Amino acid sequence: MPRAAVLTAFYAPLELRELPLPDIEPGAVLVRTEMAGICGTDVHIWQGQMPIALPVILGHETVGRIEKLGAGVERDWTGQAIAVGDRVTWNSAVSCGACFYCAEKKQPTRCPHRRAYGIGYRCDEAPHFLGGYADFHYLRPRTTIFKLPDDLATESVVGAGCALITAIHGVERTGIAWQDSVVVQGAGPVGIAALAVAKSAGAGKVIVIGGPKPRLEMARRFGADEVIDIDEVREPAARLALVRQLTGGYGADVVLECVGIPAAVVEGMELCRDGGKYLILGHYCDAGPVMWNPHVVTRKQLQVFGSWSSEPRHLRQAIEFLRANRERFPFHEMVTHRFTLDRANEALAATANWQAAKSVFVAS
Amino acid sequence: MPRAAVLTAFYAPLELRELPLPDIEPGAVLVRTEMAGICGTDVHIWQGQMPIALPVILGHETVGRIEKLGAGVERDWTGQAIAVGDRVTWNSAVSCGACFYCAEKKQPTRCPHRRAYGIGYRCDEAPHFLGGYADFHYLRPRTTIFKLPDDLATESVVGAGCALITAIHGVERTGIAWQDSVVVQGAGPVGIAALAVAKSAGAGKVIVIGGPKPRLEMARRFGADEVIDIDEVREPAARLALVRQLTGGYGADVVLECVGIPAAVVEGMELCRDGGKYLILGHYCDAGPVMWNPHVVTRKQLQVFGSWSSEPRHLRQAIEFLRANRERFPFHEMVTHRFTLDRANEALAATANWQAAKSVFVAS
Amino acid sequence: MPRAAVLTAFYAPLELRELPLPDIEPGAVLVRTEMAGICGTDVHIWQGQMPIALPVILGHETVGRIEKLGAGVERDWTGQAIAVGDRVTWNSAVSCGACFYCAEKKQPTRCPHRRAYGIGYRCDEAPHFLGGYADFHYLRPRTTIFKLPDDLATESVVGAGCALITAIHGVERTGIAWQDSVVVQGAGPVGIAALAVAKSAGAGKVIVIGGPKPRLEMARRFGADEVIDIDEVREPAARLALVRQLTGGYGADVVLECVGIPAAVVEGMELCRDGGKYLILGHYCDAGPVMWNPHVVTRKQLQVFGSWSSEPRHLRQAIEFLRANRERFPFHEMVTHRFTLDRANEALAATANWQAAKSVFVAS
Amino acid sequence: MPRAAVLTAFYAPLELRELPLPDIEPGAVLVRTEMAGICGTDVHIWQGQMPIALPVILGHETVGRIEKLGAGVERDWTGQAIAVGDRVTWNSAVSCGACFYCAEKKQPTRCPHRRAYGIGYRCDEAPHFLGGYADFHYLRPRTTIFKLPDDLATESVVGAGCALITAIHGVERTGIAWQDSVVVQGAGPVGIAALAVAKSAGAGKVIVIGGPKPRLEMARRFGADEVIDIDEVREPAARLALVRQLTGGYGADVVLECVGIPAAVVEGMELCRDGGKYLILGHYCDAGPVMWNPHVVTRKQLQVFGSWSSEPRHLRQAIEFLRANRERFPFHEMVTHRFTLDRANEALAATANWQAAKSVFVAS
Repeated sequence: MPRAAVLTAFYAPLELRELPLPDIEPGAVLVRTEMAGICGTDVHIWQGQMPIALPVILGHETVGRIEKLGAGVERDWTGQAIAVGDRVTWNSAVSCGACFYCAEKKQPTRCPHRRAYGIGYRCDEAPHFLGGYADFHYLRPRTTIFKLPDDLATESVVGAGCALITAIHGVERTGIAWQDSVVVQGAGPVGIAALAVAKSAGAGKVIVIGGPKPRLEMARRFGADEVIDIDEVREPAARLALVRQLTGGYGADVVLECVGIPAAVVEGMELCRDGGKYLILGHYCDAGPVMWNPHVVTRKQLQVFGSWSSEPRHLRQAIEFLRANRERFPFHEMVTHRFTLDRANEALAATANWQAAKSVFVAS
Repeated sequence: MPRAAVLTAFYAPLELRELPLPDIEPGAVLVRTEMAGICGTDVHIWQGQMPIALPVILGHETVGRIEKLGAGVERDWTGQAIAVGDRVTWNSAVSCGACFYCAEKKQPTRCPHRRAYGIGYRCDEAPHFLGGYADFHYLRPRTTIFKLPDDLATESVVGAGCALITAIHGVERTGIAWQDSVVVQGAGPVGIAALAVAKSAGAGKVIVIGGPKPRLEMARRFGADEVIDIDEVREPAARLALVRQLTGGYGADVVLECVGIPAAVVEGMELCRDGGKYLILGHYCDAGPVMWNPHVVTRKQLQVFGSWSSEPRHLRQAIEFLRANRERFPFHEMVTHRFTLDRANEALAATANWQAAKSVFVAS
Repeated sequence: MPRAAVLTAFYAPLELRELPLPDIEPGAVLVRTEMAGICGTDVHIWQGQMPIALPVILGHETVGRIEKLGAGVERDWTGQAIAVGDRVTWNSAVSCGACFYCAEKKQPTRCPHRRAYGIGYRCDEAPHFLGGYADFHYLRPRTTIFKLPDDLATESVVGAGCALITAIHGVERTGIAWQDSVVVQGAGPVGIAALAVAKSAGAGKVIVIGGPKPRLEMARRFGADEVIDIDEVREPAARLALVRQLTGGYGADVVLECVGIPAAVVEGMELCRDGGKYLILGHYCDAGPVMWNPHVVTRKQLQVFGSWSSEPRHLRQAIEFLRANRERFPFHEMVTHRFTLDRANEALAATANWQAAKSVFVAS
Repeated sequence: MPRAAVLTAFYAPLELRELPLPDIEPGAVLVRTEMAGICGTDVHIWQGQMPIALPVILGHETVGRIEKLGAGVERDWTGQAIAVGDRVTWNSAVSCGACFYCAEKKQPTRCPHRRAYGIGYRCDEAPHFLGGYADFHYLRPRTTIFKLPDDLATESVVGAGCALITAIHGVERTGIAWQDSVVVQGAGPVGIAALAVAKSAGAGKVIVIGGPKPRLEMARRFGADEVIDIDEVREPAARLALVRQLTGGYGADVVLECVGIPAAVVEGMELCRDGGKYLILGHYCDAGPVMWNPHVVTRKQLQVFGSWSSEPRHLRQAIEFLRANRERFPFHEMVTHRFTLDRANEALAATANWQAAKSVFVAS
């Protein structure tokens, strides 16, 4: 009987449960999980930082092979034919396409009908398998599925994870002009992804501020022109001085916040040149308030952007990008720790403790 | 001998001084002051909230008639011929046109070479007359001068004051889409100007939040569709509920902050719909920090804009706008209190105490 | 038995036919026609300028009252409850919301699944009533319906017709900056609508080029600052000279082509100032090629925009706009000629011969 | 006595003349020419396709070493100190910074005060040396000079030439979204430069249409994903079919015209997907009219852009880009033919006959 690692209570160990395979309704697809990523957000959820209903199968970065196709499913989101055995990935949430936010305001990520696999579905009701930490994954009708090209490794897709599509959306909303100087605050998965997107989008000098050392080495590997180690340059004023020195005295054209700590936002706005742009990308979760002076936005004449989750087209772009840039941006190297489902708690701990660049579940 | 009301020490009464008329260097212009506005910023300066060198002649919203033309001055900024006797106004600061911010980044209001009449020049050195509270005003070479059309009243220009061009620039940077719902926070001169610009720029429903009552009546006169009186609806949560109710449950497409109190910024971001826009316009001065949660920008996927001062083209637009919209947007009615220079302290107090919609100096 | 005026052959008189009322499938709505506009495009279709399958009931600008609601239809596009007897209008075509153009590229008007009422449906198959020139109109599932507010006259909605939403979309794509000078080429329904949208969107001086005289008077009534009568100023070079003279010597910031004659496009690009914008809006139908020099786009550094049809949100905006601006932009006065269905050929001729500002069908 | 190759009559051989070195006025700089590029535009000028006053020293892509600094010249455009002996390049034209186009409309390349070195100055008056085909080059006051970094080869700068900054400006105006599919029409210097800019700006698949074979090989070397050889695929319809096939059936997101033949523009608009963007970049010179149907812009809902010349910031970007991307985009390899001034006619012929990727003059 297929298994899943289930979150039954916050801060409690995940439980390995056996669950019955569901029937496949028209439009749905059943996938056999091949690899499922463990995202930092999963740790936050496990710690109770999102008010969700339990029990839940975590996991929203998943690749698998089609086991069964529901009636009427013939093509993926890009129009390619799909069949049993095809290797696929998918967006973790689906917008309705017809509401005020989808159709009027073209902000589909704020569609009130979205629910995310691995977060927003209880697993004690059929079809049960609505998260990545499991042998199977059920894809409800209207899920935006992508068949993966043969020359794109599963490790690349899961290694990039939701960090890449989050960064793609955030950079898209912010806009990086060709040869802009860019500061990335944070060297975690989102920071590395933002670095890759910025570099490939035409940024000139890119400076990454973060730590620890191995993550800054990863940033170098992904093309960072300069790195600032927060363990060495400990004061915001010193980091500001350094950024100014590296940008002709002005500050960066664009600063991308990928940290998730409110104080980073206060620091980050000062890192912009006057008339520059600031993206607040790392605050998907609510990390609380901070003392901040709105005068900085007026005085520096800033533009500040938020970006929430991502759209199907960002996953499409991500797949093309990963395939074409395996050497330049080796996201597959992110996958450093592999676990089977029975070691789920060990896997979650590896991510929580920053042991791994990326931990994943693989089929046993 | 010509006189000026001079700020010699913060919080001290202005002194009426006699000063010698300067020689006119090539490119400069001497103007006989006809009307000079008293801006809320003048009160802030008088209170020491800007670190400027004294003594200074305040006043940066001025209309006068040309008394003498320096060598080589033949045309105004728009290319019209100018002559002695012409009624003119001008931008209070001039950008260099060639620096990093002017020429590379096209953010001329952040040019480091800008100094503002009425703020940034000492009056104890020639040419002395570099502020509005005086019988004459010296316009240095490169000042962007505008000849006023005969059918545009001096009261309209000074009544609109720097508030209008500030609002024009801020709304330009933010962008209001046709039929957007708009909230204006604040019913002072900048709020009323932002309302006028928003309405004329195609906004749909415009809601003004502010007080006291006479200012909200002025807002109605300038086309506000709804007003929310902060003396009646005292809680931010209640104002948020009201704004949502007036905008189909979502919040406004665009919110324009014209208050200058940090807490208004925290409240204002919540008044935006998801994916909406927020302009921080009222924080030209530093009013200090506030507790704020950056998660709101990510979650609501906001765009936040700052805007500093204004450019010559905004004054050009303002003049055309005021001339064409005297009935719809009666800025001339703003001028409610007139003083001569010898009553300068009375005039400043009228503005400080919110007695006047707008106090002005007129030639005695 | 309900009747319709049917186009059975190009250039042939419309035939009055009786057709059976269809059953109402779930999601559909049956409407009793109250007023149906005759668009210039209907004349072009009648002349065979679009390769459509006949027989067809023409008419894509219609207001009616709900006669029957299909199962599951409870709310209009804006979320308002709808019931039998409500007065409604609707978009003439519906996009799928999920294809490459709808979901990836956000160009829903180019969705390949769109078919327009009054153009793209044969009437010799059930549900027959898929055009405006009929006693009833069947609205297929997913049609975007708008309940009309009581204080908005049916004449306003039909008088504005598809011209207004076409103009809203076109001006949105082009972007008019506050106080921009604008030239509208053409004084037909689309030109008048573009004028109204431009004026209300913050345009400064608006110049309308067109004819004949009554249409230019209409343009004046809708706020044109200047009109140029093509019967008086017959040469493009003379019109260019005039536009330059009216725009400080430079040409207009924005030129909106609402003519549909290819030569107008060649003339219109020259009417732009350097770095200006040009909208080609009048070429929904293919009016053939023209000699044109692409050097003009490079040399003048132009931006040229096309715009096709409109989206539901444009109709929503139109309804709010019409309601709020009855005095300033009296679209209801456009409806000058009323006909019953049995006089359908007379009605079409009135539009073809430019006798009417707007001809409409009304219930008999 | 210093020499120059002078154009004295259209279609006539250039004449080698000796000219006196000018005095250096304050703000000016005298440069000893190190390398001067021969642009395709020089050939057009030689053929009389621009109405300029002769005699002229051609050449507007030049690198040299500072020989004398006029009074007051201390820094280059980026703020770096400059001194005699420094290797520099410069923009060929300077905008005034204060006119309607510079200051109001922010279109400085359309400043009416611009005159280009190598095109717009007669050489029979002092300071004579205002073009590249000479031993010296005089840089008038306000010329925007750039000191070249030591790790940037002169060949890179001249090899990129005005084609690169033209392409940077054009792509900036058009905007390429990350992962956009792009077609470049033309494989000449501007086409290759546009390819490099597009690729580095985040384009996904880039298809180059052009010829002959060596230029397509160069396109491959610069990262073209696909090339279409116009000598093999001779019909526009066949090229359209191929582009559609390579872009999922839709056409490209962005098409960049770098050909200069009017028929290419007609073909190119069809190569765009609906809602796509089209840049007309190759029509700096007037190559005459063509039959074109404006319906295509409406129906496909296109955005069409023109771009004229370039600004100082584009040259600044180009220098940083060339330095950082020597391997990926080897512009230095473009310089294939070197001549001394006494072989000027041979040099011009090499460019006219497409013998060379790039011909240059070098100091003898």
